[in-house]
Amino acid sequence: MSQEKIYTAALVVIGDEILSGRTQDKNVSQIALWLNIQGIRLKEVRVVADDMDAIKEAVNILRARNDYLFTTGGIGPTHDDITVDAISEALGVDVVVHPEASRVLHKYYEKRGGVTEARMRMARVPDGADLIANKMSGAPGIRVENIFIMAGVPHITAGMLDALTGQLEGGKPLLSHQVGAWVAESEISEMLRETEKRHEGAQIGSYPFFREGRVGANFVVRSTDAHVMNACVKALRDGLDELGYPPIDGGI
Amino acid sequence: MSQEKIYTAALVVIGDEILSGRTQDKNVSQIALWLNIQGIRLKEVRVVADDMDAIKEAVNILRARNDYLFTTGGIGPTHDDITVDAISEALGVDVVVHPEASRVLHKYYEKRGGVTEARMRMARVPDGADLIANKMSGAPGIRVENIFIMAGVPHITAGMLDALTGQLEGGKPLLSHQVGAWVAESEISEMLRETEKRHEGAQIGSYPFFREGRVGANFVVRSTDAHVMNACVKALRDGLDELGYPPIDGGI
Repeated sequence: MSQEKIYTAALVVIGDEILSGRTQDKNVSQIALWLNIQGIRLKEVRVVADDMDAIKEAVNILRARNDYLFTTGGIGPTHDDITVDAISEALGVDVVVHPEASRVLHKYYEKRGGVTEARMRMARVPDGADLIANKMSGAPGIRVENIFIMAGVPHITAGMLDALTGQLEGGKPLLSHQVGAWVAESEISEMLRETEKRHEGAQIGSYPFFREGRVGANFVVRSTDAHVMNACVKALRDGLDELGYPPIDGGI
Repeated sequence: MSQEKIYTAALVVIGDEILSGRTQDKNVSQIALWLNIQGIRLKEVRVVADDMDAIKEAVNILRARNDYLFTTGGIGPTHDDITVDAISEALGVDVVVHPEASRVLHKYYEKRGGVTEARMRMARVPDGADLIANKMSGAPGIRVENIFIMAGVPHITAGMLDALTGQLEGGKPLLSHQVGAWVAESEISEMLRETEKRHEGAQIGSYPFFREGRVGANFVVRSTDAHVMNACVKALRDGLDELGYPPIDGGI
């Protein structure tokens, strides 16, 4: 099997509200699942404050070592929305008004009280940027170099991801299959390790839980190769059966 | 007002299951809220894969520039649980069996089939470490230098946090108060900016939403100084009122 390129992405979640515990992030899992379908692997995530230096540091390191970098948060009209300024500084480019973004915002606010200086902040982009359509509200997302600047509000981010579907070059999607069993993972850890070792190109994750007064675990087999994944899943099911723990396909 | 030390913490969330989107993280917000009460500010979070180098890099950078570093995940009995090994390497110390952890695990598994090699993996710690009590299951958390190694399963992490409550030196807790209004944040962004500027030591976060067919926003005022926070909240309420948007105390 030839070595295929694995496409990777990183995500920077920007916002004091995540770090203070006020808001439960939803964008990590949403973007991770979307990336899987595009054949791109989410490799690392950083959550940083609404702080120029913190954003710049994360953006510059992560954009250099991944094929794609996504950011969420900080692109609204208020004083704590500094993502565009920070990314422009990180890239060493000016902040400019994007004519199409300006047009979109004028149109959107035509029947909503008109544009204001604050609203026009949302037309500002790093020089050289393209827009990402936002069907949900006036303010577009922004694409510059390999960076995708998205909203913080999850359903707006979802709309932006929808606009990007199929637009990014990826590799083979990471396939996964889950098998569960009513077993303490420590009972079968040696079998898991051996099964993974015998199936190069597959990884087995083990996720224990305590439910209905009993311990159990779900095992997720991941591979970009369907053949390898299926062989590993079969070996895992057989292994559980032999040890006296009937496998439950799809997980518990 | 004298400059008071602000205590900071970072968190490394370890686990392929978060990066694949399979599992929705709950530990960031749980640990953030707990830290606030201890007078410690969560400054940055990284989510990394079950990968030695990725864990080591994050641990070494974040432990150096924060008062405390927390990790979640990767301390179970299976092959993908490599947190103790990675942190030991990051610190340049050996992995050793902790006698008390060994005793706890022997006792816990006495009526659960006895210890096995896999289960005894959970007694392994970086040399020099202390234990963090875990009332929920046999495996303890681990404290070494300024690093706190916690479980990935949120209710087990909660028990470990409980055991640490009041044990960590912190500063003044970060206070916060929320005010909401049925207003598009772009209508009042100038007032927000000015209000924040006039109250040094307070930050105002603006969090828009779309609900019941209307746009609104919640504003969170944060400060370590109750006097400053209350003055800023009052100015914010007055500002909203003057612009024709009745403030709703506590948020919407």
